[in-house]
Amino acid sequence: MTGFDTKLNEAIKKYNSLLCIGLDPDPNLLPIKDVALFNKEIIDATKDLVCCYKPNLAFYESLGMDGLQALEQTIAYIPSDIPIIGDAKRGDIGSTAQAYAKALFDIWQFDAVTVNPYLGKDSLDPFIAYKEKGIFVLCHTSNPGASDFQELTIQVDKNPHTLFQHIAAKAETWNVYGNVSLVVGATYPKQLKLVRDICPDMTILAPGIGAQGGDLRGTIQYGLNGDGAGLIINSSRGIIYASKDKSDFAKIARQAADQLRTNINIHR
Amino acid sequence: MTGFDTKLNEAIKKYNSLLCIGLDPDPNLLPIKDVALFNKEIIDATKDLVCCYKPNLAFYESLGMDGLQALEQTIAYIPSDIPIIGDAKRGDIGSTAQAYAKALFDIWQFDAVTVNPYLGKDSLDPFIAYKEKGIFVLCHTSNPGASDFQELTIQVDKNPHTLFQHIAAKAETWNVYGNVSLVVGATYPKQLKLVRDICPDMTILAPGIGAQGGDLRGTIQYGLNGDGAGLIINSSRGIIYASKDKSDFAKIARQAADQLRTNINIHR
Repeated sequence: MTGFDTKLNEAIKKYNSLLCIGLDPDPNLLPIKDVALFNKEIIDATKDLVCCYKPNLAFYESLGMDGLQALEQTIAYIPSDIPIIGDAKRGDIGSTAQAYAKALFDIWQFDAVTVNPYLGKDSLDPFIAYKEKGIFVLCHTSNPGASDFQELTIQVDKNPHTLFQHIAAKAETWNVYGNVSLVVGATYPKQLKLVRDICPDMTILAPGIGAQGGDLRGTIQYGLNGDGAGLIINSSRGIIYASKDKSDFAKIARQAADQLRTNINIHR
Repeated sequence: MTGFDTKLNEAIKKYNSLLCIGLDPDPNLLPIKDVALFNKEIIDATKDLVCCYKPNLAFYESLGMDGLQALEQTIAYIPSDIPIIGDAKRGDIGSTAQAYAKALFDIWQFDAVTVNPYLGKDSLDPFIAYKEKGIFVLCHTSNPGASDFQELTIQVDKNPHTLFQHIAAKAETWNVYGNVSLVVGATYPKQLKLVRDICPDMTILAPGIGAQGGDLRGTIQYGLNGDGAGLIINSSRGIIYASKDKSDFAKIARQAADQLRTNINIHR
């Protein structure tokens, strides 16, 4: 097990939770203007209910330097026993991929990151080389357009299957250090089942519960590994913006997180 | 024509150049420590030889806040008649893709960006909605691993072809505002020909000349559009690190840029 997997499994057990909260500060939805303070209050209200947090870098980058400073403060504030997944979906080649891995692991100090496989195995190697970190490869994403390319039928060894299944099978072969994981949207439970068949033990991050309308029961039924874990269920807007009122957003976020955690555990 | 295309074509004519210089500050190769000053000297030495500059965000992000400030200073320093392509290779969904588009176009103020198509059309829409900006969709990248997924044979309407050809054909249909372009590595001239057959008029960014050993003659032969343009040839390390000596790096970079620009023009 990698450092990330160990930390994740300990948090799953300690907080009896498969819930990941996405910390995605959208200026159109934020109840208060101060992003670092908003995240701090969300973390204070939910830190005993989650197995990890997942800030998506896009929202911080869209706020300029102030946003990046808020991300820095947020990462520093998250308790050290809770792993942090940097949702960056990076993908580049050679020394550039190495620079992204350095940025995400050495500068931002994420425990795990999301990466895009379109550029091929050599574009992911610099990430995988960080043996103690978690590498979540995009396999089948949660959006409607996921089917555009990920569900195309491909021919490999005269055996037709879809691109996302091919990527899942490849990810198995890449997983020599035990640090490769997958992203499969909770909005596609049938596809999740196909991926779990290919990768029986791999950790799967399933975003799309809540605002995107993902299927919680199907995600848990098909997504758990043999140990009843190996699955991270992410909700962002459905929790952090459950109330957009500055007087009670943290309290209502806790209620929403507690309810989702309980619902997940009922179906486990 | 979009604002970006107009600006690009004017720069191509004014400087008689299809050359793009990649501004990629790698700490292992930089002759001086100050990234903003290094870029400033490279720009001063080459600004009459290029049609655009292309900073890759990975290198700046890997240097932390200082790196991002150097990027900000670099963007501000590039003369306003030379377009800047933000090489970011972003790809995400819904409001997150929108946040990335905002970060790259409104915050960083790039004239164009590179994006990753794996997540599907809806992940690119927020970029394409910026009608005056250039959107370079990764089609066939320049790295060895490009063949892992991009060259898979897919079945669409019983017509087998490769994934990168399918993406080129899709990009044609996405190009309703005339702002969609493609990235095809100069290391794959045959694939570049196939893409040019599918997209006769689209602007193509061809990285991989120089350190990656791309085929200049083949790239020009197959990459030009009917007007003898529509092609941007990028070199990064081959120019900016042509000398790693702090006393002459700018002068030698100019020589390398001038030579490459001349070689490109001989083959046009």
